[in-house]
Amino acid sequence: MTSPLHEERAPGTDRALPDTQQGMRRRNLARVMHAVSAEGPLSRAATASRIGLTRAAVSTLVDDLIRWGLLEELGPERPGRVGRPGSALAVSGRGPAGIGAEIGVDHLAVCTVDLRGVVRARAVRHGANRGRSPQQVAKELVALVHSVAEEAEREGLWPAGLAVAVPGLVARDGRTVVRAPNLGWHDADLGALFPGNLPLTVDNEANFGALAELWLGEGTPRDFLHVSAEIGIGAAVVVDGRLLRGTRGFAGELGHVPVRPDGRACPCGGRGCLEQYAGEEAVLRAAGLEPGEDLVDQLAGRAEEGDENVRVALRDAGTALGVALTGAVNLLDPETVVLGGALSDLSPWLLPSLQTELTGRAAGPVCPVAVSRLGPQGPLLGAAHSVVRAVLDDPTVVAERP
Amino acid sequence: MTSPLHEERAPGTDRALPDTQQGMRRRNLARVMHAVSAEGPLSRAATASRIGLTRAAVSTLVDDLIRWGLLEELGPERPGRVGRPGSALAVSGRGPAGIGAEIGVDHLAVCTVDLRGVVRARAVRHGANRGRSPQQVAKELVALVHSVAEEAEREGLWPAGLAVAVPGLVARDGRTVVRAPNLGWHDADLGALFPGNLPLTVDNEANFGALAELWLGEGTPRDFLHVSAEIGIGAAVVVDGRLLRGTRGFAGELGHVPVRPDGRACPCGGRGCLEQYAGEEAVLRAAGLEPGEDLVDQLAGRAEEGDENVRVALRDAGTALGVALTGAVNLLDPETVVLGGALSDLSPWLLPSLQTELTGRAAGPVCPVAVSRLGPQGPLLGAAHSVVRAVLDDPTVVAERP
Repeated sequence: MTSPLHEERAPGTDRALPDTQQGMRRRNLARVMHAVSAEGPLSRAATASRIGLTRAAVSTLVDDLIRWGLLEELGPERPGRVGRPGSALAVSGRGPAGIGAEIGVDHLAVCTVDLRGVVRARAVRHGANRGRSPQQVAKELVALVHSVAEEAEREGLWPAGLAVAVPGLVARDGRTVVRAPNLGWHDADLGALFPGNLPLTVDNEANFGALAELWLGEGTPRDFLHVSAEIGIGAAVVVDGRLLRGTRGFAGELGHVPVRPDGRACPCGGRGCLEQYAGEEAVLRAAGLEPGEDLVDQLAGRAEEGDENVRVALRDAGTALGVALTGAVNLLDPETVVLGGALSDLSPWLLPSLQTELTGRAAGPVCPVAVSRLGPQGPLLGAAHSVVRAVLDDPTVVAERP
Repeated sequence: MTSPLHEERAPGTDRALPDTQQGMRRRNLARVMHAVSAEGPLSRAATASRIGLTRAAVSTLVDDLIRWGLLEELGPERPGRVGRPGSALAVSGRGPAGIGAEIGVDHLAVCTVDLRGVVRARAVRHGANRGRSPQQVAKELVALVHSVAEEAEREGLWPAGLAVAVPGLVARDGRTVVRAPNLGWHDADLGALFPGNLPLTVDNEANFGALAELWLGEGTPRDFLHVSAEIGIGAAVVVDGRLLRGTRGFAGELGHVPVRPDGRACPCGGRGCLEQYAGEEAVLRAAGLEPGEDLVDQLAGRAEEGDENVRVALRDAGTALGVALTGAVNLLDPETVVLGGALSDLSPWLLPSLQTELTGRAAGPVCPVAVSRLGPQGPLLGAAHSVVRAVLDDPTVVAERP
């Protein structure tokens, strides 16, 4: 798409190390893993032709990947897509796996995903986390992680890393929760609360939800804006297949975009923020309902039954979302907007007014809005898959493991 | 900053070609150019140690770069920073050069910049371009480009490419002006109007202004939002040293972010867009002045003299900018906002109210706002430097030239 003149970043200035044989080998190992992952089972010859290397070069790489437990040979008798005789290669269903965890306002969840992308073990614990300390929650989550990891180990898997989704802003160190108002946490170093032997990444749930959409959604483009809601409203910006994180890791705070500059005061210190018009609590208030458990189910149920107050409240929330998204689309020019999390369940009542705003205010072609099929599962799946992706992208990270 | 688990993009999936010796050599050539450009004059040994390659490997690369006219040897007698005896290397002040051009609403400008970043020739033609056809304007611009290129050629330079800044939206093909309302152009293929023998890139002036800020500004971070204004208001988002272009190339349309959702109708089809409150015409109208030439000088002059209407109009424009920027900062979390173009000259009267909004509405630490020192020169310089950067980033693009 872009001409050579558009390369703004010098390839020589943004890497600490020079380009070496080692770096080249690492990238070619990743190419083999991605080729087999996307198109396998594949013979060595077919893999070589897919990635444009010689068969001899690929064989050396494949031998390492088999030794590390990332690939397996299916044997010469396997029929199907493999044209030439020779053993077909497949991504291993044993060996390294990703563990994803989610800290929700009223639940904890953990799952294990193998290198093939299959969920192999899962556990959920319901119960309010609001007001509990990070130590209390982490302790319980660690126990849940252990039970899921043990279950996976019985099937020959071992955890290559743990990724934790939280409903809050996470610093770029990937471990400090700077602010999670709906848990009552600030500046909580989760890195210190998890076992040190497992590589850990903590991230905002909207970010992991967007990554799940990128990796698992059908036909999701590489440039999109992912909007999700639990109690707050969050968004994640994906550009050319990468999350835009922001300087401090705080990008995507759509909930605090002003949509009524002289409107309601917001606890953030601002005025007229989107969250004051489209957040769950605002919608409940507008509909005359009391906060409680399972807010989304409650709202969706009543709207379904034809409750006019609820429908008007959701329609107005859609209008506010449409105003905020018009600004975001003008700034980012995404290929699509995806509504995820709780918003996907409420989309039948939000979408019409949201689209009216987006269409009426659009300068050019209107940015399409899609509804996520992953819904509330997105963040947990995104977390587990982020570990798997890290292994596929640099297989040498697991080379040392016996 | 980012842990390996944050790598969302597979290194093997986003490049068409496998990693080869040729690709490695190209990247190492770029490393040599950037090292000498940033720290030269440097001996071959010092260059090798800067980029972590052997002296023998660097010498082979340097020989090619000298033959292509990109580096020159200063001779062994040069004193100074070079510790060891041996010929010091410097970026050549002859050889390939970048030509930048700017199509403004009331001027055309062209300049040549050598590989050292020095402006070597320059030409400006004043006169309104509004309502003239792309063909008419391009013809005149081509003549200006020729005269500047000839001047540069007399000093031993030759044009490696031409980059043209336009006040409008440019498609990602880097040649089609999709919409330039202040010129009255739409869907104009500038690529067909310039000589085919020179690599051409057309881009939005706000984008080139932001790149100039990135490359030439003092202490400009690698993540920032650049806001500029001529007749319209544009912005450019720079993330990790790269422009965020958007799916169609239209990212950065800050002027059409809604700041008063029920406010004034905008020719774009929207309502309450920032441009209706902070665009030059809106400010003139609010100040009770007639549109004319040199609007910015006129506004700045009157504000300087203490004209209360003008000051109030600029203060209100700053407020509207502050509302739109609050949304942008919440979405993007940039390290800083830079006011460029005409906004830099008006900043004394815009900044106080702009900062009041940004501070009052900020959830966390306030994003700092800086004023560009390049001002209206930014887009032209950014265009010329983009050609120079392309050569530094991949020196092989000029290898074929005698």
